[in-house]
Amino acid sequence: MTMLALSFARVCSGLAPFRTALHLQPLRSASGITVAQIDEEVAKLLELKARLGGGDDGKHQFVLKTPKGTRDYNPKQMAIRERVFNTITRCFKRHGAETIDTPVFELKETLTGKYGEDSKLIYDLKDQGGELLSLRYDLTVPFARYLAMNKITNIKRYHIAKVYRRDNPAMTRGRYREFYQCDFDIAGQYDAMIPDAECLKIVHEILSELELGDFRIKVNDRRILDGMFAVCGVPDDKFRTICSTVDKLDKLPWQEVRKEMVDEKGLSEEAADQIGEYVSLHGGMDLAERLLQDPRMSQSKQACAGLSDIKLLFSYLQLFQVTDKVVFDLSLARGLDYYTGVIYEAVLTQAGVAPVAPASNDTQNGSEESVSVGSVAGGGRYDGLVGMFDPKNRKVPCVGVSIGIERIFSIMEQRAEAAAEKVRTTEVQVLVASAQKNLLEERLRLVTELWNAGIKAEVMYKKNPKLLSQLQLCEETGIPLVAILGEQELKDGVVKLRVVASREEVDVSRSDLITEIKRRTSEA
Amino acid sequence: MTMLALSFARVCSGLAPFRTALHLQPLRSASGITVAQIDEEVAKLLELKARLGGGDDGKHQFVLKTPKGTRDYNPKQMAIRERVFNTITRCFKRHGAETIDTPVFELKETLTGKYGEDSKLIYDLKDQGGELLSLRYDLTVPFARYLAMNKITNIKRYHIAKVYRRDNPAMTRGRYREFYQCDFDIAGQYDAMIPDAECLKIVHEILSELELGDFRIKVNDRRILDGMFAVCGVPDDKFRTICSTVDKLDKLPWQEVRKEMVDEKGLSEEAADQIGEYVSLHGGMDLAERLLQDPRMSQSKQACAGLSDIKLLFSYLQLFQVTDKVVFDLSLARGLDYYTGVIYEAVLTQAGVAPVAPASNDTQNGSEESVSVGSVAGGGRYDGLVGMFDPKNRKVPCVGVSIGIERIFSIMEQRAEAAAEKVRTTEVQVLVASAQKNLLEERLRLVTELWNAGIKAEVMYKKNPKLLSQLQLCEETGIPLVAILGEQELKDGVVKLRVVASREEVDVSRSDLITEIKRRTSEA
Repeated sequence: MTMLALSFARVCSGLAPFRTALHLQPLRSASGITVAQIDEEVAKLLELKARLGGGDDGKHQFVLKTPKGTRDYNPKQMAIRERVFNTITRCFKRHGAETIDTPVFELKETLTGKYGEDSKLIYDLKDQGGELLSLRYDLTVPFARYLAMNKITNIKRYHIAKVYRRDNPAMTRGRYREFYQCDFDIAGQYDAMIPDAECLKIVHEILSELELGDFRIKVNDRRILDGMFAVCGVPDDKFRTICSTVDKLDKLPWQEVRKEMVDEKGLSEEAADQIGEYVSLHGGMDLAERLLQDPRMSQSKQACAGLSDIKLLFSYLQLFQVTDKVVFDLSLARGLDYYTGVIYEAVLTQAGVAPVAPASNDTQNGSEESVSVGSVAGGGRYDGLVGMFDPKNRKVPCVGVSIGIERIFSIMEQRAEAAAEKVRTTEVQVLVASAQKNLLEERLRLVTELWNAGIKAEVMYKKNPKLLSQLQLCEETGIPLVAILGEQELKDGVVKLRVVASREEVDVSRSDLITEIKRRTSEA
Repeated sequence: MTMLALSFARVCSGLAPFRTALHLQPLRSASGITVAQIDEEVAKLLELKARLGGGDDGKHQFVLKTPKGTRDYNPKQMAIRERVFNTITRCFKRHGAETIDTPVFELKETLTGKYGEDSKLIYDLKDQGGELLSLRYDLTVPFARYLAMNKITNIKRYHIAKVYRRDNPAMTRGRYREFYQCDFDIAGQYDAMIPDAECLKIVHEILSELELGDFRIKVNDRRILDGMFAVCGVPDDKFRTICSTVDKLDKLPWQEVRKEMVDEKGLSEEAADQIGEYVSLHGGMDLAERLLQDPRMSQSKQACAGLSDIKLLFSYLQLFQVTDKVVFDLSLARGLDYYTGVIYEAVLTQAGVAPVAPASNDTQNGSEESVSVGSVAGGGRYDGLVGMFDPKNRKVPCVGVSIGIERIFSIMEQRAEAAAEKVRTTEVQVLVASAQKNLLEERLRLVTELWNAGIKAEVMYKKNPKLLSQLQLCEETGIPLVAILGEQELKDGVVKLRVVASREEVDVSRSDLITEIKRRTSEA
């Protein structure tokens, strides 16, 4: 508190000796330093920072924007978003899924150690006293926490919610830092590859129904990757890091990936070249059979287990009628630490797909966007994750898929724009209007009748709006009917019902109005 | 980076001289100290803190829980939540609202200065480099930011999303730190009190339709409060603080509120007593008329403007047929800084309403819950908020209402439990089952046919499940139909369709199956 009362200059002056002390002071007794004391110092420094200018650029101007990597959705975008969500939700429900929800933040330690090299992208909340919290990075880890906490051993659930990643927009353009994931997961001890195949069936159904153009679903298995690394001579402690280099093959050519393996990660050239041979392979059930006979690959028990499961998976995919889009691809290597078995990723392949619009805040370098690969779904099996949360390490096998929505939204938005499609953003069936002045009360009385009967209706919030401006409102917002009140109509106990599109007008008796509106709008 | 490479003891030792320096060092030149340098020091201290133990209690045990003040929703709770959302959304759409969405966090400065004394409840994100961010505290301020940013001068929109408040659970039990708000707002320059009245009509419709028992909607006006404070002799600079004391009248008796005004806030006893007379008043349009004649109150122009508007509001509420539940109540004083005109709050009044279950993490003192007042909606007019975001201070008049959902969920959940109501959590219409072994492929083939025809269907993920366990699954989860395959049925080209409830079984030819399932499930 003393410090905060000091003058600005005096506070600043305190910093120079501090920095020197921290770096150069010789060893002293560490006794007595506590977390609370550090918290106090941090709070003071941040207070000082706020006085120095608060923002990052030292400017004091008020910036009217959403945070970097985020966006608002306007009503038109929301209408498109709801259509996409409805298609996805319908599919999840068709496959018998329940839904759950979890908080947007978790205890920081819940997320620790689950995301490998991506952990640096987690948003932490400020320590304001109490628990240390982080925004969820995906919906999978909260799901596993939920299962362990509630001792649930089998469930089929979907969860549609936003997740948060402090991604570097310069690296992954067109992606957002806040984005929706639509997850479908099956937890439980079941016979091999049946739930796994259903997840792929679901991806196939959703991408087909959304009519996004042609797509491929790449499939691989963590055990095949690990087995491949082993037989190619990658040291055990380099599996993970080499795996995340392989993961870049969808963005970089092999020569660059090979360079990173050898120059940066210290892998031998021979090992890299052997990996290079394998990761160029893709096919179907036949490829899995061939690799089971491969003299090197067949030496790895792990790889063989994975390859047998891929064969079984393809046999189920045939029954599900989805093999036309599924490719067994040895270059697929998803980054997350928690996968243990089959992994997959769906990409849009249609050349005609327009480049994704970059986030409104990250307009620089938007032109390179067109090279980005259209990954729209991904997932896999993670049999160990729930056990990480269970005090007794009881395992619950899980497999799931996550549909990435932002790119799908972008495509749908561009299409709606290109087609000059008129997206209605309300569902109003009728505007209650007046042809003369001083009829506000009558309008409010009538619209109340309509609302009470469940009809979607509006009035203009003016005492005496012009008839023309009332009709214009209908044209602009797509309201199909106008219920017009005038002195004569009131005397006759009728309402003039006007069809906006045809300009046809009929007098409808007040008592028949609700039935008539319902009849006319259910036709449409 | 140097520091992070130091040994633990050495880093700790650096802190003691730092603290001395910061507090006691005499004045020096402040040149050269930048925000970036402070950021660096803060990062180092936090790193050090993490090494010292990270958590708040120094314990290293893994805690399996959701953050304080938050909860998961299980499938049953989600089914109830969806019903409530559907009712609310239907009402908002009936009144012609569009919907928008905004990010869960905003620039910290966007929220600054909008919430008065409640600002301390805002969740800040950790400064990880880049912008300073806070979780949204309500949906109103992001809405105003959205309007100003997009230069929108009129819109009627709803927004259903989670908001975040670091509330003290000991003070406001039964409330959550993460909770949904369902907001409906009308922005635009319109004739007085028409949109305001529609907001109250909406609250009336939603609370009636949800059948939560009897309720009241209290109405007041910020201008009446301010005028009342002025004529009672409250000094100008104490309006806000006295207003937040009045706001406590729904939880505390007048004597305690008076005590706080006089003892803590330094108000004269005479002023407090005069306020006490006014805030005990409640009524309808007649009360507004009476106060317009009140010798003291009528001296305030502001109060008169507010009272005239209350009269006009009640005249529209009569046309909307909702005056039975609306009370003009001078003790209503909502805390937020941004209200400028009419304010309102809906409370459940039915004595039979059970106490709210406290958040699962805050079980202590749950017994006092039953005294809490059932506030389930609130809102008002805020004509200045959008202007605060506009560089030219262009105003967009706004009025809106926010439905608080958590308490409504709790009541519905308790009811479902009390009625032992069986809440279905999936919509599956048919289970594809087998009566004999070795029919997995046939089951997968059939379920694919059903999915492709849009039927909600499941199979058990076992190669050879027992018929009994398949039938049990239907009983447990409420699946109404079972499509049973056996060797004989396959030979005959039929499926045995079993109605779970009646145990009736009929053979249906394979080609008629889809039509038959649709027919039987659309009846239900």
